Amino acid sequence: MSIQRVQDGVGGEPRTGGTAPKIVVVGSVAAGTSAAAKARRNTESAQITVYERDQDISYSGCGLPYYVGGEVETLDELTPRDATWFAKRYNVQIRTGREVVDVDPAARTVDVVELATGARFTDTYDELVLATGVSPVVPPVPGTDLDGVFVLRTPSDARAVRDRIELHDVRDAVIVGAGYIGLETAEQLVGRGLGVTVVEAMSHAMPRMDPDMSARVDAELRAHGVQLLTDTRVVALEGTAGAVTGVVVQDDTGGTPRTVPASLVLVAVGVRPNLDLARAAGVEIGPTGAIAVDRRQRTSVPHVWAVGDVAESFDRATGEPAWVPLGSTANKTGRIAGDAMTGGDLEHRGILGTSIVRVFDLAVAQTGLTEARARAAGRDVVVMHNIKPDRPAYLGGREMIIKAIADRDTGLLLGAQAIGPAGVDKRIDVLATAISFGAHAEDLFHLDLAYAPTYATTKDPVHYTGMALDNAVRGTARLITPEELQHRLSTGEAIQVVDVRSAKDRAKSCVDGSVHIPLAQLRERAGELDPAVPTVTYCNKGVSGNAAQNVLQGIGFSDVRNLSGGNTNYQAAARARTDR
Amino acid sequence: MSIQRVQDGVGGEPRTGGTAPKIVVVGSVAAGTSAAAKARRNTESAQITVYERDQDISYSGCGLPYYVGGEVETLDELTPRDATWFAKRYNVQIRTGREVVDVDPAARTVDVVELATGARFTDTYDELVLATGVSPVVPPVPGTDLDGVFVLRTPSDARAVRDRIELHDVRDAVIVGAGYIGLETAEQLVGRGLGVTVVEAMSHAMPRMDPDMSARVDAELRAHGVQLLTDTRVVALEGTAGAVTGVVVQDDTGGTPRTVPASLVLVAVGVRPNLDLARAAGVEIGPTGAIAVDRRQRTSVPHVWAVGDVAESFDRATGEPAWVPLGSTANKTGRIAGDAMTGGDLEHRGILGTSIVRVFDLAVAQTGLTEARARAAGRDVVVMHNIKPDRPAYLGGREMIIKAIADRDTGLLLGAQAIGPAGVDKRIDVLATAISFGAHAEDLFHLDLAYAPTYATTKDPVHYTGMALDNAVRGTARLITPEELQHRLSTGEAIQVVDVRSAKDRAKSCVDGSVHIPLAQLRERAGELDPAVPTVTYCNKGVSGNAAQNVLQGIGFSDVRNLSGGNTNYQAAARARTDR
Repeated sequence: MSIQRVQDGVGGEPRTGGTAPKIVVVGSVAAGTSAAAKARRNTESAQITVYERDQDISYSGCGLPYYVGGEVETLDELTPRDATWFAKRYNVQIRTGREVVDVDPAARTVDVVELATGARFTDTYDELVLATGVSPVVPPVPGTDLDGVFVLRTPSDARAVRDRIELHDVRDAVIVGAGYIGLETAEQLVGRGLGVTVVEAMSHAMPRMDPDMSARVDAELRAHGVQLLTDTRVVALEGTAGAVTGVVVQDDTGGTPRTVPASLVLVAVGVRPNLDLARAAGVEIGPTGAIAVDRRQRTSVPHVWAVGDVAESFDRATGEPAWVPLGSTANKTGRIAGDAMTGGDLEHRGILGTSIVRVFDLAVAQTGLTEARARAAGRDVVVMHNIKPDRPAYLGGREMIIKAIADRDTGLLLGAQAIGPAGVDKRIDVLATAISFGAHAEDLFHLDLAYAPTYATTKDPVHYTGMALDNAVRGTARLITPEELQHRLSTGEAIQVVDVRSAKDRAKSCVDGSVHIPLAQLRERAGELDPAVPTVTYCNKGVSGNAAQNVLQGIGFSDVRNLSGGNTNYQAAARARTDR
Repeated sequence: MSIQRVQDGVGGEPRTGGTAPKIVVVGSVAAGTSAAAKARRNTESAQITVYERDQDISYSGCGLPYYVGGEVETLDELTPRDATWFAKRYNVQIRTGREVVDVDPAARTVDVVELATGARFTDTYDELVLATGVSPVVPPVPGTDLDGVFVLRTPSDARAVRDRIELHDVRDAVIVGAGYIGLETAEQLVGRGLGVTVVEAMSHAMPRMDPDMSARVDAELRAHGVQLLTDTRVVALEGTAGAVTGVVVQDDTGGTPRTVPASLVLVAVGVRPNLDLARAAGVEIGPTGAIAVDRRQRTSVPHVWAVGDVAESFDRATGEPAWVPLGSTANKTGRIAGDAMTGGDLEHRGILGTSIVRVFDLAVAQTGLTEARARAAGRDVVVMHNIKPDRPAYLGGREMIIKAIADRDTGLLLGAQAIGPAGVDKRIDVLATAISFGAHAEDLFHLDLAYAPTYATTKDPVHYTGMALDNAVRGTARLITPEELQHRLSTGEAIQVVDVRSAKDRAKSCVDGSVHIPLAQLRERAGELDPAVPTVTYCNKGVSGNAAQNVLQGIGFSDVRNLSGGNTNYQAAARARTDR
């Protein structure tokens, strides 16, 4: 059967009273405990049992890299709640060391193995919640069983990695995969003084982002001494006496494989849903490979729910199935299921894939569609890059870059990415909130955001982003991305590219083939340009380029575009093409 | 005549071309220059002149306290743009040292005096923009003309204050008024080692906020050594040899006036619009005392516009006239007028009064309606206080308090206030964005905000705020504010107040008359309570109190409320009543 993604609510039912349901939850990290706690909040009468095959419950998986690095001193800080706490607080029984190995949805029973003894028993349920989470993907290459090779998913994993570093003479580490966990751990290991190599099969670190943005992450890693190998795959792990000594890698040019020395290897290429129990229950798996659920987290099998990383989600904007396993979503879906199965009316509204990661001195964040995903979905988009400080320079403001994507026809805001040393988390959350409410580019300027020079500029970077994006959507100040300009120049198209900066700035770097007319001279020297030829104006970041664009448009130039993000962004994009 | 607040747009008109309008702007700080710059961006053909009676233009008034304190070293940093820059960048002529002293709207002329020479001349306009700003209010008490008595509005003011401190032996300062400028300057003067007294006529610092929140600002000031005198008025300033030596104050109990020694006095009790020119033009003044404008910033007189602090705004939610002079709004309205007078279609969407101020280690922020203003407007509201860390404790998270106000019938989010050491600016901007889009309490939980433990908790404080507020709106977890509980207890009403905390926490402070049943014992000891008597549960901050509330409701207690913000908030509210 197929999942109906919107179903009637049961909001009219009382949340308490009636017969006492027996709720069984499988998995006790974020989503499982959220479901149990919310069910209890809604009803005192339910009997709620959580089975957990491990010992640790309700831990912060996202905090593990910081335990490895020592920024978090003890694992206890990441596992503040134990089974006793849940029993007292919520009257929820969490039974650790018990693995649910089978389910009979017709009989509504689960088979449970007590791992310490091997004893097997059967339990019954009225409602079953699958919160079985994900497991790290380990590539099928030789040597992953060597000592010193780790994944980082549980507190036990984190303890093993840290012990390895502290008890052995670990000097060099290789991290396979440049996603969240890989980059967070890279930062932490550099902080511990290790030599760190990051191997990434895609062209850039943070491959979920657009290349022009993730190239900035590459640069940050390299600036902090990380050897980043992109477009590179791991062929094998090598070892001596059972312990890892190196990682054999090969780049996509097909050259000779080479060995990167390493006495510690972290495999962080991704995760896959733990579907064994789902398959035993016969629930439908969605197109993303995670468990298909409706908006109340119901699977295709009656009385079986799925929450957290093992469950599929859907894109808030398009309604299409989406799977982005993140702790924030796991908590949400757990709460939604716990509410729904006890008479509440909560429904999931989908995800924007909003995320953030600290990479050394930068916050790297995104929400909604990237340019690449929007274009892949067939969208005609307007793209702009905005480079602005988080606060005024006079109070120590530092620049961030925001890349925003809007639908060309309607101006609907589709997504944003932001990178910078400060204030990025705020701007991405404001943009995520705006997107959630269906904001258009023009709406951003009108937001009444909190201004004081200690926290923001008078016009916030979000305002500037909206203003420039809206102008581009309306066509009053059209933009051209570095990629598009580079592509059109490479085809030999006649474009007059006008650098309106000072001679001093131009001497540092410029767009090849551009002519130089400083903005202050543009009105008098515009005659040097041909108003009928496509024209691109640019400055350092885009503001003066826009002023120049306005000047030329105002005196009759028919096709003028401003270079999005200016020369700063153009040079970054150029590096993104060449830094491999 | 009366202003029509919504008028037909003229968006269909071309932004360029047509006859070249002559635009005259009076005032060159934030709004005036924004209007001029936007007009130029829309059209190259306009002739644009800005008259400014002072010498400084386009400066950051909000940065002045930080120049006084030395956090900003030079005034140049606050005045990065001069008339030459505007001429080159925008072909806008800024004529400083010229005061516009009269206007003839029928003839469309202004009379201008060149202050250095006294020469008077007449200029013509097609569109006239009043950006005359505000002036500090100086109370009518003796002695304000003494040396050492200042206001802080312009760079010249700031230079005078700083010179006074650096060139004289200033040890004690009195700041009259505990609003933004007063508090920012108090912080900066303490940083310079001065003894600082703040005198405020209202009951608390930051009187724009609700008393239970502003009491926290009072405490922060006092914790940093500021002598804060609330409910206190200045009677006179005293001096010797023409220089101020003290401030005579009197509290509202009618006691004997006393003198606070001071060799520096800053008067920061508020500002009033500079209306001379508006009156000369005959434009309508709104009910707030600022210039009435429509949503395109047009005054009641044709071809006369008003922008920035001198113009009235309106509440985004209610549409009612509102006047909250802030740099963020000034910039917006300037841009809107500049656009509208050159064929654009921008319209002001109103304000939420969103603001933020740093007071020593706290960010103090608000958006939308306070509880007091909502109630004064006759709204039936639900109020909740949420105390949560900005990040997990294991990565150094520190607690903030968010007070949120929603309409009881609909759950519509009306306003929020937030105070804390970190992450407050982000949450208030997210809430302001949500309110702008008409968010209801239930919407907040569903926001897909950016989570990583380096930046936020898995459920963000905004999520928690929404969850608890929504539960209170729905009546599934009703709240009681400290004020309401205290009031009801004081009337002798029979309420059983249940403290569900540990004995250790209870020993520190508790609600008088409460009974003590720790949450873990509540299920078994509930028989000690009467299910028919109104019951209030509480813990330290509200989470366990809510759990206890759920337990009691689940076993049939009919009227259970959770104390909003728990004992922490209750004690703060108690201090708010007594700390004067």
